[in-house]
Amino acid sequence: MSNSIGTLFRVTSFGESHGQCVGVVVDGCPAGVRLEAEIVQKDLDRRRAVDQVGATLRREPDLVRLLSGVHEGYTTGAPVCMVVDNTDTDSRAYQEFVRTPRPGHADYPARIKYGGYNDPRGGGRFSGRITAGFVMAGAVARAVLDRIGVEICAHTVAIGGVEAPPCDPDAIRLLNRQNSLSCCDESSSASMVAAIEDARARGDSIGGVVECVVLGLPAGIGEPVFSGVDSEIARAVFAIPAVKGVEFGAGFALCRARGSEANDPYSLSGDTVVTAKNDSGGVLGGLTNGMPLVLRAGFKPTPSVRMAQQTVDLETMTLAELTISGRHDACIVPRAVVVVEAVVASVICDLGLRSGLVPRVMR
Amino acid sequence: MSNSIGTLFRVTSFGESHGQCVGVVVDGCPAGVRLEAEIVQKDLDRRRAVDQVGATLRREPDLVRLLSGVHEGYTTGAPVCMVVDNTDTDSRAYQEFVRTPRPGHADYPARIKYGGYNDPRGGGRFSGRITAGFVMAGAVARAVLDRIGVEICAHTVAIGGVEAPPCDPDAIRLLNRQNSLSCCDESSSASMVAAIEDARARGDSIGGVVECVVLGLPAGIGEPVFSGVDSEIARAVFAIPAVKGVEFGAGFALCRARGSEANDPYSLSGDTVVTAKNDSGGVLGGLTNGMPLVLRAGFKPTPSVRMAQQTVDLETMTLAELTISGRHDACIVPRAVVVVEAVVASVICDLGLRSGLVPRVMR
Amino acid sequence: MSNSIGTLFRVTSFGESHGQCVGVVVDGCPAGVRLEAEIVQKDLDRRRAVDQVGATLRREPDLVRLLSGVHEGYTTGAPVCMVVDNTDTDSRAYQEFVRTPRPGHADYPARIKYGGYNDPRGGGRFSGRITAGFVMAGAVARAVLDRIGVEICAHTVAIGGVEAPPCDPDAIRLLNRQNSLSCCDESSSASMVAAIEDARARGDSIGGVVECVVLGLPAGIGEPVFSGVDSEIARAVFAIPAVKGVEFGAGFALCRARGSEANDPYSLSGDTVVTAKNDSGGVLGGLTNGMPLVLRAGFKPTPSVRMAQQTVDLETMTLAELTISGRHDACIVPRAVVVVEAVVASVICDLGLRSGLVPRVMR
Amino acid sequence: MSNSIGTLFRVTSFGESHGQCVGVVVDGCPAGVRLEAEIVQKDLDRRRAVDQVGATLRREPDLVRLLSGVHEGYTTGAPVCMVVDNTDTDSRAYQEFVRTPRPGHADYPARIKYGGYNDPRGGGRFSGRITAGFVMAGAVARAVLDRIGVEICAHTVAIGGVEAPPCDPDAIRLLNRQNSLSCCDESSSASMVAAIEDARARGDSIGGVVECVVLGLPAGIGEPVFSGVDSEIARAVFAIPAVKGVEFGAGFALCRARGSEANDPYSLSGDTVVTAKNDSGGVLGGLTNGMPLVLRAGFKPTPSVRMAQQTVDLETMTLAELTISGRHDACIVPRAVVVVEAVVASVICDLGLRSGLVPRVMR
Repeated sequence: MSNSIGTLFRVTSFGESHGQCVGVVVDGCPAGVRLEAEIVQKDLDRRRAVDQVGATLRREPDLVRLLSGVHEGYTTGAPVCMVVDNTDTDSRAYQEFVRTPRPGHADYPARIKYGGYNDPRGGGRFSGRITAGFVMAGAVARAVLDRIGVEICAHTVAIGGVEAPPCDPDAIRLLNRQNSLSCCDESSSASMVAAIEDARARGDSIGGVVECVVLGLPAGIGEPVFSGVDSEIARAVFAIPAVKGVEFGAGFALCRARGSEANDPYSLSGDTVVTAKNDSGGVLGGLTNGMPLVLRAGFKPTPSVRMAQQTVDLETMTLAELTISGRHDACIVPRAVVVVEAVVASVICDLGLRSGLVPRVMR
Repeated sequence: MSNSIGTLFRVTSFGESHGQCVGVVVDGCPAGVRLEAEIVQKDLDRRRAVDQVGATLRREPDLVRLLSGVHEGYTTGAPVCMVVDNTDTDSRAYQEFVRTPRPGHADYPARIKYGGYNDPRGGGRFSGRITAGFVMAGAVARAVLDRIGVEICAHTVAIGGVEAPPCDPDAIRLLNRQNSLSCCDESSSASMVAAIEDARARGDSIGGVVECVVLGLPAGIGEPVFSGVDSEIARAVFAIPAVKGVEFGAGFALCRARGSEANDPYSLSGDTVVTAKNDSGGVLGGLTNGMPLVLRAGFKPTPSVRMAQQTVDLETMTLAELTISGRHDACIVPRAVVVVEAVVASVICDLGLRSGLVPRVMR
Repeated sequence: MSNSIGTLFRVTSFGESHGQCVGVVVDGCPAGVRLEAEIVQKDLDRRRAVDQVGATLRREPDLVRLLSGVHEGYTTGAPVCMVVDNTDTDSRAYQEFVRTPRPGHADYPARIKYGGYNDPRGGGRFSGRITAGFVMAGAVARAVLDRIGVEICAHTVAIGGVEAPPCDPDAIRLLNRQNSLSCCDESSSASMVAAIEDARARGDSIGGVVECVVLGLPAGIGEPVFSGVDSEIARAVFAIPAVKGVEFGAGFALCRARGSEANDPYSLSGDTVVTAKNDSGGVLGGLTNGMPLVLRAGFKPTPSVRMAQQTVDLETMTLAELTISGRHDACIVPRAVVVVEAVVASVICDLGLRSGLVPRVMR
Repeated sequence: MSNSIGTLFRVTSFGESHGQCVGVVVDGCPAGVRLEAEIVQKDLDRRRAVDQVGATLRREPDLVRLLSGVHEGYTTGAPVCMVVDNTDTDSRAYQEFVRTPRPGHADYPARIKYGGYNDPRGGGRFSGRITAGFVMAGAVARAVLDRIGVEICAHTVAIGGVEAPPCDPDAIRLLNRQNSLSCCDESSSASMVAAIEDARARGDSIGGVVECVVLGLPAGIGEPVFSGVDSEIARAVFAIPAVKGVEFGAGFALCRARGSEANDPYSLSGDTVVTAKNDSGGVLGGLTNGMPLVLRAGFKPTPSVRMAQQTVDLETMTLAELTISGRHDACIVPRAVVVVEAVVASVICDLGLRSGLVPRVMR
């Protein structure tokens, strides 16, 4: 396993779904950043299931405990370790999946890789619950970025077949917390809720797309060729369970455009170089160009559905039928919004330190 | 800049478009792998422009020179340094782009980042020419993977608006070198050629999509949570200039499916666990599941078009008009096919070493 | 700060002397290794002060809590997080050292580096207490190495001016836990105790030398040129507070020898290639040669002495006199023995994984 | 193999003793640093054998070729690749050592590690010749450090039994290039020459000690706990062939001192905090304290002696006698002086970038 990411702002994830806790160590955080539990808790609360349609019935307070790296309310430059305890776990169902792996989950390849020693309870390390650690790290990154005027906002742009209309970065910033789906368009949000309810009623699940923008980034952030801002963000976003695609700006749609349409002409806004549109999503050659960074992450439907599915009994090596019970999200997309923000924030904080944008001490 | 990728199979890229050479160091290559210049040359030749419709008129033999790490035709375990010289360069045009940056290229953010010291000739480090280094590294990785029965094949699935019909992994393997576009469907290929010719005639450019499959991978390769096979591949593929999106398996299309449709049921093929379909693209939870790994990379149109474009004169800080002359590809997608294969090969070789699949000495 | 070490067996240290806890995350530990709290506790207990002459009066049970990565008594392949709580802390004295830094401690450079935000209580991250984390990681590494027959034993070879006679590796293994000083020679041990008592009586402190041997290593471990076994061990050992020198085999004494004396002639022991003596300390060109690995770490005296010392008042920028009270070790060398073993074990485990000696799953 | 070192200033070494060339890639060098071949050549010339008593008869011009990363005499921010060609190689002798490995060399463990595929000619990757690459990287690092007033000077302090008297940092700076031994004391230098001549006449070899100082470093450089300035330097210095010990400040001698003697009292020099003496060698807790950084590296005698030595015939697995002919240094210490400077410079440049001391663009 390789549970660290980042070069100067280094995030190390640990913990399992049904173990004692889920946690994270953030090493390389600048000293002098205001950080109290409440700041982290706010993001953790956005990730929680309560209030959200179609979300798991697992109910945990997810109270962050700051174990190190903070003194008198400020980061010290030392590694920040944070944990949330697992309190509402029910592991009875999972032993079955060791023998008859769930389609769409990592049960089977994990069994092969770890020789059967991996913790199967709640999916262990492969559970979406580990993203609580990502969120805590992201909250630290955001506290840092906040000091230099960089802001990260994500929103739900599609769920199932429902797509919200395009929304410009400034509007996203204002509207992305207006409803429990983090959708900036109220009418689309209502349709999305209906789609989720419908999926849940059938015992099925649906996926969707989260868009994330980063505002306030100057040009020149990113470390090409292998640590370009797009490369590093893509790596981090694919670490979120269920992500199957990542695109920047107009993304795959650009593949069908002509160069004369795809290029963003340079222009001026006062003394600032801008582009007349932003189909590149603010990234050229792995470097930010001063426009808002825009990316989308595509989430497949959560694989735990209540319908009978075909699998293999790994003991007898015969076909078997599996029906999953338990408490599962019919759609994890709304809860993933803050997770996308978090991993993007961590990457931006790291690249910001690498380029000198983020100082080592915040004075 | 950060020009290395990989943990155990570590690729370090160097060189500029119009400097003396483009090169790469591969550190961590297992000892005992047959490697001669011809093996690398074969992939380099696939990347060259000759024969290809719409490709640059720049003509260089791109002959690889193996500078280290090979003794008597076998890798020694020492770093393998390889270079190709730049011979056909014409840098006159590029000084202009320092002052009036080209839309869609990295001229502007690179100038900001490197304080004007970056080499502007031919785009310097931001040129597609640096992918010659990726291809050389990939050829080494493929020589390694070949010894353990892992094969990597990419093909062109879309150019401009033309999309080739789906093609299964075994067919890709047989057909992806049948034409100069690396398209497995001859009829689509003809339409793609027409689309490229049309774009070139207009002085415009078009993009497209490359699909890549990895055959022969066992289950359990990948190092979650941050070095899952999808995370690491995405990072590497986004380092290829012009890539704007990466997806695995059914990718973004999965976001619109139901879980009951999206999940790939497990099945048996003799004694081997397989899935009945492969919408996951062979990756679950960052781990391979034993099915072919399938990914797609979306390329925007090459930004060098011969039409007048709006930009900014960075000296006077006024709007300016820019017309790019020079020798540019109207469509780089066909030449990118071997580049995608190469970076995927490097990542798989690295993850194979990390998991123990690839031995440190090939005996 | 950079609190991680290792490439495949990656140790991340966190926690402060007077914060809530000291801890460590071990990422990359093979799955299937028997690991229970008792195994780790045994090494932690060896590091504790109790029983040891001249040791701090700070008394903490240092009970390890295994937070993740272990399931049903075996490692799972997931990161192992372990903490010990800080319970017996008295931070009153330390605020003074922010203004008048202690000679020989990191108070002054840390204040400069972290802009005054570093946690000064008990020395914060610069306290010897953080080595409790190293010891926990080392215990995991030893559990792994134990499975493949590799053993790590350190002993005290000098304290103050008292030097123990040379001791061969097999004897070290038998004798290094026979007394509280971890000295293999009882007579030297008695003199060392007297030297420590004498230093303590004067309010002074003394240093010493720890020698460490690794038994059971095959030839060929190490990753030259920059991750040779000597390079990686030296890096790790210098992370232990108070270490000022590291040498392998005959070390600095070899600088005065002739080549004809210094070289270890090859010989045979049955079918095994051995060397007739081991002045190289088992390492040639960064690679193990199959003989016991032998290294020595030199520790300066602990800088907290009860005598008046000259320092600078950083507020008034005038000379000042400082007298340190509090509970400090008169000699930390005996307690450092298990710490040296621990960091060496972590490095060997990492290099063992990198070379394929240590499997990813222990079956 | 692992041939890279550094996090932001990343040095990758390649090449073999008798291959085509020895080279290095420096990635992460700040843009805007004046760099021409002459600057690098000057250090390479100091490493060459000519003029030096007891040095190898191998005569190569060692002319650096700058392959990338420099444009119009300034670094661009792109990776700097540099090579020197191997021209005067005679590989006939080395095949013998594959079968009957040389005592004190890496022949035997390398054969085991690389399954016999390693390049044996001239010792391959294990030859001192690869330090030409270290020197080129060091020259780049020094060009960077020069811009911020940091200077690195090493000198020979012992050869065989001859020890030069202590020399303060400012004197080292003035005197360390006054003779071919890089010894700051002329009288000691003469005795050292005699000792080398004597060893050579016997067909034997001798080692020695190099001391290195870094001047102009502010307090607070280093990234504890695992990338302290001492940890990182030790790692790099042990990568130089034949180094068997590294110590900082008074080093191992401190182990015999009392704390009241060992501590360096703080004092003031005008408005600057200094220490009254510098037994710590300028490093406390892994951080520089503003005093000159002082370290010593102990070199064993070069293992190639012309006397008969006992070894093992690895084909027949019987004892054998080996007599090495060929062109070898009787003492490599004087040539190693610039190599120690080089690796220390690379580490300081890296840590300087990590702490913000070194800017990413030199304006």
